[in-house]
Amino acid sequence: MWKVVWATLLLLATVCAQRGYAKETKGAPKVGHVSVVIVGGTGDLAKKYLWQGFFHLYANQVSSGYSFSFYGGGLLPKDKATPFLFEALKGVVCPRELSVERCALVKEQFLKLAEYWQLKTSEDYQALGKHLTEQLTQEGIVEAGRLFYLSVPAFAYADIAERINNSCRPTDGAWLRVVLEKPFGHDFSSAQLLSTQLGTSLKDEEMYRIDHYLGKQVVSKILPFRRENSKHLDPIWNKHHIERVEIVLKETLDARGTVWSQKTEHFIFYVRLRMCSNPIYKTVMVPVTSPVMRCLIYPTFVTGRIPFYDQYGVIRDVIQNHLTEVMTLLTMGLPANLSDVKEVLRNKLKIFSALQHLDRNCATIGQYQNYNLEVQEELNKTKEYYSLTPTFAGIMVHIDIAQYEKMPIILTSGKMLDERLGYARILFKNDIFCVQSHNSVHCKPKQIVFYFGHGTLQYPAILVSKNLFKPDLMDTEWKEITEHKDVSVLGMPISDYYVLTPTVQREAYAELISHIFQGRKDSFISTENLLASWGFWTPLLHGLAKTSPRLYPGGADNGNMLDFKLLGREVTFANEAVVMIPQDHMGGSGAESFQVMQGKYRSAEMVSAWPEELIVRLAADLQASAEKAVREGGRFHLALSGGSSPLALFQRLARHHYSFPWRDTHVWMVDERCVPLTELDSNFRTLHDHLLQHVKMPYFNIHPMPVQMNQRLCVEEDSGALLYERDINQLVNASSFHFVLLGVGYDGHTASLFPGSKLDAHGDSLVALTESPAKPHQRMSLTLRAINQAQKVGVLVMGKSKHELVTQLSRVKDNPNKWPITGIRPTSGRLVWYIDYDALLG
Amino acid sequence: MWKVVWATLLLLATVCAQRGYAKETKGAPKVGHVSVVIVGGTGDLAKKYLWQGFFHLYANQVSSGYSFSFYGGGLLPKDKATPFLFEALKGVVCPRELSVERCALVKEQFLKLAEYWQLKTSEDYQALGKHLTEQLTQEGIVEAGRLFYLSVPAFAYADIAERINNSCRPTDGAWLRVVLEKPFGHDFSSAQLLSTQLGTSLKDEEMYRIDHYLGKQVVSKILPFRRENSKHLDPIWNKHHIERVEIVLKETLDARGTVWSQKTEHFIFYVRLRMCSNPIYKTVMVPVTSPVMRCLIYPTFVTGRIPFYDQYGVIRDVIQNHLTEVMTLLTMGLPANLSDVKEVLRNKLKIFSALQHLDRNCATIGQYQNYNLEVQEELNKTKEYYSLTPTFAGIMVHIDIAQYEKMPIILTSGKMLDERLGYARILFKNDIFCVQSHNSVHCKPKQIVFYFGHGTLQYPAILVSKNLFKPDLMDTEWKEITEHKDVSVLGMPISDYYVLTPTVQREAYAELISHIFQGRKDSFISTENLLASWGFWTPLLHGLAKTSPRLYPGGADNGNMLDFKLLGREVTFANEAVVMIPQDHMGGSGAESFQVMQGKYRSAEMVSAWPEELIVRLAADLQASAEKAVREGGRFHLALSGGSSPLALFQRLARHHYSFPWRDTHVWMVDERCVPLTELDSNFRTLHDHLLQHVKMPYFNIHPMPVQMNQRLCVEEDSGALLYERDINQLVNASSFHFVLLGVGYDGHTASLFPGSKLDAHGDSLVALTESPAKPHQRMSLTLRAINQAQKVGVLVMGKSKHELVTQLSRVKDNPNKWPITGIRPTSGRLVWYIDYDALLG
Repeated sequence: MWKVVWATLLLLATVCAQRGYAKETKGAPKVGHVSVVIVGGTGDLAKKYLWQGFFHLYANQVSSGYSFSFYGGGLLPKDKATPFLFEALKGVVCPRELSVERCALVKEQFLKLAEYWQLKTSEDYQALGKHLTEQLTQEGIVEAGRLFYLSVPAFAYADIAERINNSCRPTDGAWLRVVLEKPFGHDFSSAQLLSTQLGTSLKDEEMYRIDHYLGKQVVSKILPFRRENSKHLDPIWNKHHIERVEIVLKETLDARGTVWSQKTEHFIFYVRLRMCSNPIYKTVMVPVTSPVMRCLIYPTFVTGRIPFYDQYGVIRDVIQNHLTEVMTLLTMGLPANLSDVKEVLRNKLKIFSALQHLDRNCATIGQYQNYNLEVQEELNKTKEYYSLTPTFAGIMVHIDIAQYEKMPIILTSGKMLDERLGYARILFKNDIFCVQSHNSVHCKPKQIVFYFGHGTLQYPAILVSKNLFKPDLMDTEWKEITEHKDVSVLGMPISDYYVLTPTVQREAYAELISHIFQGRKDSFISTENLLASWGFWTPLLHGLAKTSPRLYPGGADNGNMLDFKLLGREVTFANEAVVMIPQDHMGGSGAESFQVMQGKYRSAEMVSAWPEELIVRLAADLQASAEKAVREGGRFHLALSGGSSPLALFQRLARHHYSFPWRDTHVWMVDERCVPLTELDSNFRTLHDHLLQHVKMPYFNIHPMPVQMNQRLCVEEDSGALLYERDINQLVNASSFHFVLLGVGYDGHTASLFPGSKLDAHGDSLVALTESPAKPHQRMSLTLRAINQAQKVGVLVMGKSKHELVTQLSRVKDNPNKWPITGIRPTSGRLVWYIDYDALLG
Repeated sequence: MWKVVWATLLLLATVCAQRGYAKETKGAPKVGHVSVVIVGGTGDLAKKYLWQGFFHLYANQVSSGYSFSFYGGGLLPKDKATPFLFEALKGVVCPRELSVERCALVKEQFLKLAEYWQLKTSEDYQALGKHLTEQLTQEGIVEAGRLFYLSVPAFAYADIAERINNSCRPTDGAWLRVVLEKPFGHDFSSAQLLSTQLGTSLKDEEMYRIDHYLGKQVVSKILPFRRENSKHLDPIWNKHHIERVEIVLKETLDARGTVWSQKTEHFIFYVRLRMCSNPIYKTVMVPVTSPVMRCLIYPTFVTGRIPFYDQYGVIRDVIQNHLTEVMTLLTMGLPANLSDVKEVLRNKLKIFSALQHLDRNCATIGQYQNYNLEVQEELNKTKEYYSLTPTFAGIMVHIDIAQYEKMPIILTSGKMLDERLGYARILFKNDIFCVQSHNSVHCKPKQIVFYFGHGTLQYPAILVSKNLFKPDLMDTEWKEITEHKDVSVLGMPISDYYVLTPTVQREAYAELISHIFQGRKDSFISTENLLASWGFWTPLLHGLAKTSPRLYPGGADNGNMLDFKLLGREVTFANEAVVMIPQDHMGGSGAESFQVMQGKYRSAEMVSAWPEELIVRLAADLQASAEKAVREGGRFHLALSGGSSPLALFQRLARHHYSFPWRDTHVWMVDERCVPLTELDSNFRTLHDHLLQHVKMPYFNIHPMPVQMNQRLCVEEDSGALLYERDINQLVNASSFHFVLLGVGYDGHTASLFPGSKLDAHGDSLVALTESPAKPHQRMSLTLRAINQAQKVGVLVMGKSKHELVTQLSRVKDNPNKWPITGIRPTSGRLVWYIDYDALLG
């Protein structure tokens, strides 16, 4: 009992400091003073999390030898704003480990150390800077550092950073740390611009970009968990064992902060009433069945997050940042030293650079039904206005490194869903065959769940299926829970898991503020990290810009309409939509209404369709030819052209034609540029990267043209053309390819046979060196004779820009020296033109 | 009412025939007479299935215009055997579609048409042949054909076939069909021998090898089902959509026909009492807890199936035939015409030729605990005798064609399991992400189950998950069942399936007998099919010959101890064993007790271990070198040797080293034989087939030696060695490989540097043409200089046969012209000897 009183008296001495700078306790070393400035110190975020976080920091550091001062900055003059600041400060609560008595003392002191400072003009910042320096000098205290927390809209960042740089840099030796909140741009260019702007005022190491997910205890334990359990995880942390990874953030709120309450079948609105500059929050329950009630409530909303949200949408809001960060933590190579920021960053960037390019087929997007009404109202739009901003997205990502190749990583998030829940799940493949006793734990799914919070469990946890392994307790900050209420987590009763949870739960912001204070940059987003992430997401965002999201009613009513299906590298909704944004408001070509068309062109067969269907058809025709050839003679000899048109074909073949008989297919080149095969403009290199690398074909079946011999390119004396011809003669029956795929250039050239060159001069040769009017001039090409000997020749012509050519060619007579393509007349094989509607119809 | 009577009268006229040959009805065409001979006509199979099947045939064909006679053949004289035959015949029951009246008539007639015929000696067969011909002549009837059903032990086949050939061939124009029951040999050679023997007497088209699984209605519908539903199946019938295929046959019986009854916790014995030549069956229930009771029962068993079973085991008994047939039906390419026997066979054989070689790591085997006791008793063995015959096997098979590559196919069967059940399940990958409503049918497993019978369902059926597709009803012989009792089939309630079942259930034997009569060979095992199957299974059977099966108690007590785990291409039991066959009765090296050992050899580093561990270690070292090189310089240059020792290494790298940085690895050859690269004895070909083909490496990173240039091999003037040297100089930093892997020959040669050749003559060259004392003599090889420039050189030496060499080399001094391997002294790199214990310790 006496001890407690004594401790209290001691504490009183410790914290009994005046406004300005705390007197130090005797025992603590004098390590310097820290000034904290929250720009936007009376705003929402500051009130809800930041002051609380800094109070925690203060409470933890009060005996450490540091002294502190806190400034809440804002646009209002001091007399008007101070009461708001005081209101916010009063609300802070103590860490649990503090006794009630000590808490009261520390809190009192904290309040004394905090004041409001108007920060509107450059002069205001100059004044602040001057004040900070003067105070230090007056008190004769060493400065440790200055921490500016910018809790203001992102458009103000550059200006404020400039002012800080000009007027508020600390004295020599002390640090400057400026904390920024997302959004950091809305795509790659804007993020790069913002970075450049900030870079003129602040050094990279001075910037702390917050992603509060990195402060969540479970998220920040991902790497330590992987390290501590590497004995168990190393053998299974790869595509061979992982079926898929799911990173999920489900919200029940709408874009304005309205929550769908499943239990009560009521909407609960957090209504913010307009009350001058001091908004009051109230919660109002409105029965769903009462449209009248809802109409009464609507007008009282302050136009809050909608203007922001409608510019951003779910991908920019939470996927580009939070879920992407979790993904990199789950997949990056484990650094030798977890606290080596550079190594962590390097390993993260490796993942970013290996992410497969996303196109719009890799995502499904949705929008809750009321969203558009909200947008119309809050942005004063007409009834005809349709926002395409997604409030839901399901995205599949692949990492193109051997460890994870083809392993689906699902990132999904949405508003107005059935439950509030955030988790990352690693679901392992079912590698057990249960002969009997199917209900034993051995036969159940194997998974590791990083449970961020909410949902059925309501606390953060790491869960490991009992049939996987018993995880090591990482440190005393985590404990195992063995007694549970009877809940089910992701399809399994909790008793089937080992459950680890933090001994003490901490707020993400308090964690991060403590890290900023410690200068631990590993919990923050570096510029390279940020740009890499935007670099990855921007093409998808652009690709989706005109895509109509599926409408969903919200809450439990969504049923299974948002479920999505993984198909190779693509994602689609699994079930039919109920409500769609009206088609007449949408873009798109309406291509679906056209079928593949067959006809005649230059008195040969023609297949025509919209680009995608044309490629589907050509790929199917190729496979049919291949199967026929293999059936009849055991081999399929295919000669392919360079150029950009076949790229889509190569991708289609690689991704969709699982049963193509590659093992029995020989691939030859129609033509080649005289550059080393490894150069990016080599036709073979293109073919290699887009097709050959993705299918399993024997090395011996691949026949690049020998343009490089004796370390020089296409020299007549090296007889490369003759060598290729000999190979053809030796391997291809009657030197007659089964299928030759050609393109045609604007000047009518095909293969590398150009107008004006004397094609007759090739005589009986199958392969010749030729000259192109375009660079690189030197080429090697199959001759007309080699091509016309083929069993089937396909000519692929795509794009509006080829329309004029297609029209012209339809009129000219055969004249190979002027129009080399007209020299294609297979002796006994078939010629088929594959022309898309763009090229055919213009 | 009158109609029925009239029909009965008509029928009476139809079947009212005399013993011998049925009088034909007026309407039916006279298509000829068929003689059926069941050799072994009073045996078990004949009694249980065959007479029944032939009776069905007769009932179906009685109005078709054919006439019949039936002979039951056997070793006993006619007077003794006829009563047994009569007993068997009396038991036949009519097809359901027959009215009771008609049934009685048909059956009466059938009995008249059947007689016993002693078939013991060649003379007996001569007499039979004479009788058959005479009867035909006497009655003046055209002969359609003769059907011999050999229901006798396989050892008698060749003799009987010879006698049939000599004495019982039908007259010109009529067919001969000889039906055989398994076993058709016990491995490839014995099956081949039997085939050859039979081939001297019978033409291939005359032999009908029965696999009664092919007569099961569900099994024979697999191909038609796949055809009819190809619209739905074609896109998903591949590795991308199928998670795995399970083909399962679970039995509750033991090897003698004892059944474990889960419900009663009793053993039920089908006790066959010795009663001279007329055995009687009785069912006796014995409590499990009553060893006394069981002991009392044991001696009354006739030594029945054990002598057979102990020679065969579960793989030969049901997996090599039944389950394998089902596997081929599920995976073979669909023939254009399902009844084109040749095309079906061709497609089946394609599957067999693409099956990946099985070694003993691809199987788990078990034996129920009492089995050995039964063997000891019935085969009069001592208490020390341990049979290694498996009564349970779980096997994983892979088909090495693009469509199914790496897709696990599980074949499993066992006696004394918890339930009687046969099925093939195609489990599809879970490609849905369920955002909400996880219990909806969409989120459930997708599977197709070919349910052969028994189990919870108790009738044959084809089940398709409702979230897959609604299957087409194939024909009127199948119907959809929509009303079910509330059962669960393979983890899903039956209401989640579309369920198809045969309109009328037919016995497999009756089906097959009808097919034999129709000459439909597609339901029978052709010689090629049989040999292909044995060719596939024989290496595994030999590999398992000395493997100790896990012991299991039988029935529900097995718990999860037979569950097995799929690891890449290997299979292991998922849980610890409880009971093992005592170790001192087993073979094996006890290798587990030795660790990897490090030491010195020829004053260089040495790593030594048992063969498998050594390869594991070498592969790990290679990966470490690769990662280091890629980290430091972005590339790993690896030079590999030919020979057989590295094969295990290649396989290990391909199967286990998922994260090996192949994309940044360049593979070079240490040496090459002067043969085309596609030849099987090319070092590159071996490397290609065992490693390169299985990893994703850019084409440009693969560097075979240019032994073939200008269509000739290793000609000095073609400067192939110089070309390779230039490539090395150009691509490899300082021409210093990161890792060179060597072997060493009995004569001390390494790479293709042989004793007695003047190695100094290579001068500064990195690559040279050399001469081998062995064929092919001409070689291309890295020189000592090129190897000694490497950063690390590993020498792999394995096998007892190298022990002498290893001892000798440990004593000799460096003398590269005598012992080329002693010339390996890396200038600044490391030399490590990898020597397995066999080579080191002899």
